[in-house]
Amino acid sequence: MNDYPYPMLNRPSMIWSKQTDKRVDLKVHEWIETIGEMKPHWEDYDVTILGVPLSKSSISTSAASENPDAMRRAWRAFGTYNLEEEVDLARLKAIDLGDVKQHVTDIRYTHQQIQQAMVAMREYHPHTIPLMMGGDHSITAMLIKGWKQVHNNETIGILQLDTHFDLRDLAHIGPANGTPIRQLVESHTVEGKHVHTIGLHGFFNSHELKNYADQHGVHYTTMKKVRKNGIRHIVTEALAQLEKVVDTIYLTVDMDVLDIAYNPAAPAATPGGMSTEELFEAVQLAGEHSKVKAMDIVCLDPRKDVGEMGVKSAVHTMLSFLTGVCRRY
Amino acid sequence: MNDYPYPMLNRPSMIWSKQTDKRVDLKVHEWIETIGEMKPHWEDYDVTILGVPLSKSSISTSAASENPDAMRRAWRAFGTYNLEEEVDLARLKAIDLGDVKQHVTDIRYTHQQIQQAMVAMREYHPHTIPLMMGGDHSITAMLIKGWKQVHNNETIGILQLDTHFDLRDLAHIGPANGTPIRQLVESHTVEGKHVHTIGLHGFFNSHELKNYADQHGVHYTTMKKVRKNGIRHIVTEALAQLEKVVDTIYLTVDMDVLDIAYNPAAPAATPGGMSTEELFEAVQLAGEHSKVKAMDIVCLDPRKDVGEMGVKSAVHTMLSFLTGVCRRY
Amino acid sequence: MNDYPYPMLNRPSMIWSKQTDKRVDLKVHEWIETIGEMKPHWEDYDVTILGVPLSKSSISTSAASENPDAMRRAWRAFGTYNLEEEVDLARLKAIDLGDVKQHVTDIRYTHQQIQQAMVAMREYHPHTIPLMMGGDHSITAMLIKGWKQVHNNETIGILQLDTHFDLRDLAHIGPANGTPIRQLVESHTVEGKHVHTIGLHGFFNSHELKNYADQHGVHYTTMKKVRKNGIRHIVTEALAQLEKVVDTIYLTVDMDVLDIAYNPAAPAATPGGMSTEELFEAVQLAGEHSKVKAMDIVCLDPRKDVGEMGVKSAVHTMLSFLTGVCRRY
Amino acid sequence: MNDYPYPMLNRPSMIWSKQTDKRVDLKVHEWIETIGEMKPHWEDYDVTILGVPLSKSSISTSAASENPDAMRRAWRAFGTYNLEEEVDLARLKAIDLGDVKQHVTDIRYTHQQIQQAMVAMREYHPHTIPLMMGGDHSITAMLIKGWKQVHNNETIGILQLDTHFDLRDLAHIGPANGTPIRQLVESHTVEGKHVHTIGLHGFFNSHELKNYADQHGVHYTTMKKVRKNGIRHIVTEALAQLEKVVDTIYLTVDMDVLDIAYNPAAPAATPGGMSTEELFEAVQLAGEHSKVKAMDIVCLDPRKDVGEMGVKSAVHTMLSFLTGVCRRY
Amino acid sequence: MNDYPYPMLNRPSMIWSKQTDKRVDLKVHEWIETIGEMKPHWEDYDVTILGVPLSKSSISTSAASENPDAMRRAWRAFGTYNLEEEVDLARLKAIDLGDVKQHVTDIRYTHQQIQQAMVAMREYHPHTIPLMMGGDHSITAMLIKGWKQVHNNETIGILQLDTHFDLRDLAHIGPANGTPIRQLVESHTVEGKHVHTIGLHGFFNSHELKNYADQHGVHYTTMKKVRKNGIRHIVTEALAQLEKVVDTIYLTVDMDVLDIAYNPAAPAATPGGMSTEELFEAVQLAGEHSKVKAMDIVCLDPRKDVGEMGVKSAVHTMLSFLTGVCRRY
Amino acid sequence: MNDYPYPMLNRPSMIWSKQTDKRVDLKVHEWIETIGEMKPHWEDYDVTILGVPLSKSSISTSAASENPDAMRRAWRAFGTYNLEEEVDLARLKAIDLGDVKQHVTDIRYTHQQIQQAMVAMREYHPHTIPLMMGGDHSITAMLIKGWKQVHNNETIGILQLDTHFDLRDLAHIGPANGTPIRQLVESHTVEGKHVHTIGLHGFFNSHELKNYADQHGVHYTTMKKVRKNGIRHIVTEALAQLEKVVDTIYLTVDMDVLDIAYNPAAPAATPGGMSTEELFEAVQLAGEHSKVKAMDIVCLDPRKDVGEMGVKSAVHTMLSFLTGVCRRY
Repeated sequence: MNDYPYPMLNRPSMIWSKQTDKRVDLKVHEWIETIGEMKPHWEDYDVTILGVPLSKSSISTSAASENPDAMRRAWRAFGTYNLEEEVDLARLKAIDLGDVKQHVTDIRYTHQQIQQAMVAMREYHPHTIPLMMGGDHSITAMLIKGWKQVHNNETIGILQLDTHFDLRDLAHIGPANGTPIRQLVESHTVEGKHVHTIGLHGFFNSHELKNYADQHGVHYTTMKKVRKNGIRHIVTEALAQLEKVVDTIYLTVDMDVLDIAYNPAAPAATPGGMSTEELFEAVQLAGEHSKVKAMDIVCLDPRKDVGEMGVKSAVHTMLSFLTGVCRRY
Repeated sequence: MNDYPYPMLNRPSMIWSKQTDKRVDLKVHEWIETIGEMKPHWEDYDVTILGVPLSKSSISTSAASENPDAMRRAWRAFGTYNLEEEVDLARLKAIDLGDVKQHVTDIRYTHQQIQQAMVAMREYHPHTIPLMMGGDHSITAMLIKGWKQVHNNETIGILQLDTHFDLRDLAHIGPANGTPIRQLVESHTVEGKHVHTIGLHGFFNSHELKNYADQHGVHYTTMKKVRKNGIRHIVTEALAQLEKVVDTIYLTVDMDVLDIAYNPAAPAATPGGMSTEELFEAVQLAGEHSKVKAMDIVCLDPRKDVGEMGVKSAVHTMLSFLTGVCRRY
Repeated sequence: MNDYPYPMLNRPSMIWSKQTDKRVDLKVHEWIETIGEMKPHWEDYDVTILGVPLSKSSISTSAASENPDAMRRAWRAFGTYNLEEEVDLARLKAIDLGDVKQHVTDIRYTHQQIQQAMVAMREYHPHTIPLMMGGDHSITAMLIKGWKQVHNNETIGILQLDTHFDLRDLAHIGPANGTPIRQLVESHTVEGKHVHTIGLHGFFNSHELKNYADQHGVHYTTMKKVRKNGIRHIVTEALAQLEKVVDTIYLTVDMDVLDIAYNPAAPAATPGGMSTEELFEAVQLAGEHSKVKAMDIVCLDPRKDVGEMGVKSAVHTMLSFLTGVCRRY
Repeated sequence: MNDYPYPMLNRPSMIWSKQTDKRVDLKVHEWIETIGEMKPHWEDYDVTILGVPLSKSSISTSAASENPDAMRRAWRAFGTYNLEEEVDLARLKAIDLGDVKQHVTDIRYTHQQIQQAMVAMREYHPHTIPLMMGGDHSITAMLIKGWKQVHNNETIGILQLDTHFDLRDLAHIGPANGTPIRQLVESHTVEGKHVHTIGLHGFFNSHELKNYADQHGVHYTTMKKVRKNGIRHIVTEALAQLEKVVDTIYLTVDMDVLDIAYNPAAPAATPGGMSTEELFEAVQLAGEHSKVKAMDIVCLDPRKDVGEMGVKSAVHTMLSFLTGVCRRY
Repeated sequence: MNDYPYPMLNRPSMIWSKQTDKRVDLKVHEWIETIGEMKPHWEDYDVTILGVPLSKSSISTSAASENPDAMRRAWRAFGTYNLEEEVDLARLKAIDLGDVKQHVTDIRYTHQQIQQAMVAMREYHPHTIPLMMGGDHSITAMLIKGWKQVHNNETIGILQLDTHFDLRDLAHIGPANGTPIRQLVESHTVEGKHVHTIGLHGFFNSHELKNYADQHGVHYTTMKKVRKNGIRHIVTEALAQLEKVVDTIYLTVDMDVLDIAYNPAAPAATPGGMSTEELFEAVQLAGEHSKVKAMDIVCLDPRKDVGEMGVKSAVHTMLSFLTGVCRRY
Repeated sequence: MNDYPYPMLNRPSMIWSKQTDKRVDLKVHEWIETIGEMKPHWEDYDVTILGVPLSKSSISTSAASENPDAMRRAWRAFGTYNLEEEVDLARLKAIDLGDVKQHVTDIRYTHQQIQQAMVAMREYHPHTIPLMMGGDHSITAMLIKGWKQVHNNETIGILQLDTHFDLRDLAHIGPANGTPIRQLVESHTVEGKHVHTIGLHGFFNSHELKNYADQHGVHYTTMKKVRKNGIRHIVTEALAQLEKVVDTIYLTVDMDVLDIAYNPAAPAATPGGMSTEELFEAVQLAGEHSKVKAMDIVCLDPRKDVGEMGVKSAVHTMLSFLTGVCRRY
């Protein structure tokens, strides 16, 4: 495999056996293929899944590095058929590329590998939709930089579902999980006015960050407004606004956007957040939109999970997004 | 007690002391009587409660066998008075018959005992409403077969609250917890068109099962529709439709119908499910309906519970149903 | 400090370091001052916070005594800026007075200390709003008695958010956590008709207690009604009714008013309760009302908490109330 | 039952069903009888078991009040036959009297009830060996006072297995769980020199308490010495020394004597303590001694337990003691 | 693979990626090969590993069915080099065959599959040492029957490490986890006098079972004796005694032989058991013995585990046995 | 405080109130002083305590960064008097300097700060014994480098209690927690032959690492040998050997040296390790030795702890070491 484009990846650490028996109900782990010893025909795939197990860059202690494997274990309990939407994901062809290699002590180096993984994905199979399983939110900056490196003429927008602006100052903490949007704005990768964050609430963003957002034209919608107008309306509007001004919309879901009762597994989980039902509707809508071309799910720490509710919600979020994607075709 | 009709039952393994002191607030464990050494006057009772501690027939590992005792422990924290509905359950006379005896290694034999327990209940005190505490969902098939064995001229309908169709193929897995409705349909105990399942959602039913449901006329309502129209409307409609075509409606509640945030204790708990508030309203409505003559609560594994929220919800479900029953009189 | 008014208090057992570095985002533990070795200028403060770590008076076993310290630890994760309301709590000046000293075996003595702590607060800085972190609900009776002792011409009303009436009979159990409202009524500290309890539901109040409430004119609103009319409407009405007849409204929040899915940490947590979103809206409305002059948060047992969701909700409740208070100025 | 000697007791809150089927292996819950509606023939019994669910008198928060019921649930997993010692406990006749009634808010009153329960046991069936399941260590003072009240000519000695002296000053904290031995010494119920505490270690007793012990002639053996000489030698010596000077030896086991790895469920569990193996050997030796006439097990909080290891160890401790008792006959 | 001898097996459900990078420290998951799509050269292997995920046959509820996968996950944290013994397991060639297929509701059928899996192993590669990961103890009877079916001229002995005799009566409970030794004795597969059980203790075997053991000449050694003479001496003697009278010794380790402090994950874990240190020494000694030709590890329920200590101990037990095996060569 | 030597430290994040009431039993948190607003008289102190909350450099995910605060919380439950040794730690004067400031994303920078913190301690109060609370084991390399920077003429030896050699190759993973000894050897800070590691066992060190140790003359003693000869003998010998060839012995305790049953909280906890009793004896002996001049405790992750047994053992380890130190005077 001398032309293998992914020197910076490890294969998925665990590979699930496919049942050789004929079965009527296809499970997600039987549907998603795994990168293996033979070179895949890249052109066959619609979706490429990538684990990004970095959480050393988190402000608070986080084992989000264990999330990609936790999601892989959890998706065995999901089928490919969405009954409520009457959509079968098996119509898409998906492959799990494995995980970006992690350096134990050099976060900067790991960040570069993450960027290069996105570069490779965009170069070798630019028609696929990349789905990234974090890791903490710092990876989003590197992934979008990777996208920009390949598609440097594109205007990129961001639809962020998050309790936080993620606009903290790199000068204080470096490229950490509180800074990705600011990092992208300050590096001129994405303009502030091309970002829309939905789900902000409570006492978890300082006045200074709000001022920064306002100064840079970052759009945002609080949970109070989401509850008043409904998530469907809010997301539809945000997409409509973004599609006018950008070529590509990158969807990033920080799992701490969920209320702590629905997801205790986010390191920064709080009360007052979104319900899973609202989140699933939001990402499905995004999935339906033809300009939404990539998605990541970050800040889910399986060690803090209770009854697997956080990890199962992360998998469902990924599958709800893909339900939307199926609708495009 | 030589005419004791229940050779297949053990007495409840634990019996709560009634406080001899006069107390103003009657607790559920002080209200529900316990089968004892003297023969009860069966005619006095309105409700008979039965534990069915079988979960070896579960597809995934389950300790739902421990649910009947967990519910008995938990109901000590509940009173008999429903303040919101201004109904006192103490107006009903209820008795706990104990648990169906379990064989350690012969599931088929245990299934027969379960059927015979229902036969005995219908023969000895057919005016009572049986409430069964499972156990896994495989017991529902045996309980309804027992009912049919005694009342073989009745047309039986099923109102099922569940995340799943429970229409999986017996040929693959035997009479397991994924198969009860199919088992009843294929044994001609209940017709597919006399079944209505409410609460299906997400990625937890295969396309093949949906096709089977459609072919056999099984009615169903997804959570998406429940959220759109409201649980009150959906349940009222389902009962109205069933009452026209059946003599008896059997209510079966698979506790995995609840969202995992409300009930992490179901072996197959998932996000995207029903809230407890919706479930309590649904079963109270069913309880009010004069054709609803039996109820079971299944697939609650106390070992997976968090802060007792699942077991308390199971008890509340039982008591909300009985609140409805009180309304009939 | 020979004129220190608080012989019955211990300083907060733990004092958080303030970061000396300039930081853009002020955290709650950096905002709330701590009583120290120098006498504060009482006139500077708007809010005084008091821990009341008594839970030996609970009917069921409770470690609510550990709640004040748990809240102090948890509020480090909150900022002072409420983005949804665009209010910065830092506009208020707040001080943490520490905890009422506890006797290991003499509950009566501790109760007297609690009353004296309120007396001291009202005498030394009557312009401040006292916020009490319980402890169990028995403390509310002592705190209001302390208030009445100083302001004996005031008519006091109570807005209670609770799953229970708290009208149980002292003759049976003494001044326990099930009795505070009755204790206040029977001691003629507060009239029954000046009490409004919101959030009652389910099977957790006996018929006899309801009768007692009706006989004494206690107002109450069940969750069923809250869901029908909305929490905003209910609280607005309750405050409007109380403000006509009382001089001071004391707000008491029993954390078991929350649904067990949102707060498993209350010793008497149950399904069917309020959401955190509703609770936060309720207390913010109360905070906005100029007659609401004191607040307590009780019956939160951090040992029963799951993923800190209960303790974080308690802190958010306190901060949402203060958000309302800010609106008054 | 108008001559029932136990107005201060509740029946055991839960009563286990005896299996009516003939079974080859007798379980502890099938062997221990339960006080019921008919008056027992007191003369038939060798052992009377009493629950003392008081832990409001604990210095640290404790749910040891839940220990008696936890032990009753756990002993269902134990048989009556001790294979290693070839002794069958069923040779003894034992009855569970239930629990001392608890006042919710008046610890002094509860303490008096505990003393009266011991008085009643010694008056009505003085030939039996009372086994008390605490509750916290404060109960030991009341139980021994009760014994002394009836047998006021007896010299009483105490063999205590504990990490602590339990000699703290009542003047500071009242009759709490840190004070029972001091309380007995200061009330002249037991002389300091008739007390022997085994298992002290680490940093959990102050120099002042050691001085108090030395001044009053309290004997003690540290874990360091236990490890050097072996528990068998230490206990044998302690009993030999006590038997010369007292009529009755009361055995009290504070479960915090166990190392935290063997018993995380004691509120004051620490590393450096005794192994279960040593504890079982110690109490069996005590059980064999004819002057050891009563035993209690205290300070076990089931809510802190891990995998039931603490509660199972408490049951095993009780049964190992009874194994010794069987040897006497 | 038309001559694949294992129609009754599923491949291991998860397959760990081998790191392609050269690494100095070989991990167990990189050493153990996995049965795959190509037929292995059976003659190359020294050890075959088999998962037997059956625990429906347990008397108490058990998720021991999840143990094979739990062990596979846990052994990633182990290397192949035993420093204390200076032995490298990589000298052996080992392959993981996967798991015996499980029927959801027909335990008898599954039992037959288990027997057939052993038959296949003995027929296709009789020179290998089979290591079975249970499942509950009922599997041992089927595995030894499978061995006997192939090697019907061999006299088989059993070295059992267990808290229990496992001699309960099949007439009562069928082929459950309490019956395997009796089942083998009564089916004349193994003679009672060719069985030696080490580790019995406490109150967990009835007098009747001891009588049965004595009548059939079953050898046994209690923990009391193990502590007195040392595990090395006891195991050496037991092997010396067995080797004189049998051709093959089957080693079966019920993980409940460990003290509950060392292994809370066995469904029947108790205090008073063996330490891990003693267990590792015992199995290493057995591994060194040339007549010990097979081993199983049973009754480990990963859901009851605490901090993975039980599962890690199970893996260490397997590797300590193999350390002994290496010594043979 | 313009000559404050610690720009790289934060004050302890939480400061415990000292009780102003006279108390007979001094608790550890009342004994250890806290660095505050006034400059301490450095010459008064015998012991300086430093938190080093870095665990981003761990190979496996670790929250050992939370250990310093966890130890500070836990030591409130310890007194200063060691009853078994009749030593009062209060005879020493100790101060808690706080924690080394952590960079969120730049591990190298944090490592430099750690080294500078040791440099400052050695320059400003070289007579004190520094006690460092990690953090992961990577900090040991930086701390010893700091020592060497100040005392560059000293020959430094290391007594390491650890399950692992910590000799992994920096070329692969950078200055991580598996590499500190190798880092010191390769930087010529410490010679291999001046290192003695006690507690190695099981399958947790590769053959290659053993070869490296042998090539560099690193001394080591396995648990097998510890069990044979006793920890007292082993430690005494190791110290005797080191004292001949070095000026200063640095004691480093990796908490994973403890058996997982005694300490589940180490990220790499395993069965087969040391007991707490052995560890306490080992460090006390080291504390008694006049050449042992510094100590650290690392790799304790409070989030993995069970019943606080790991954190309490870490505090006891620190206090046992100081018990030894008291003996020197």
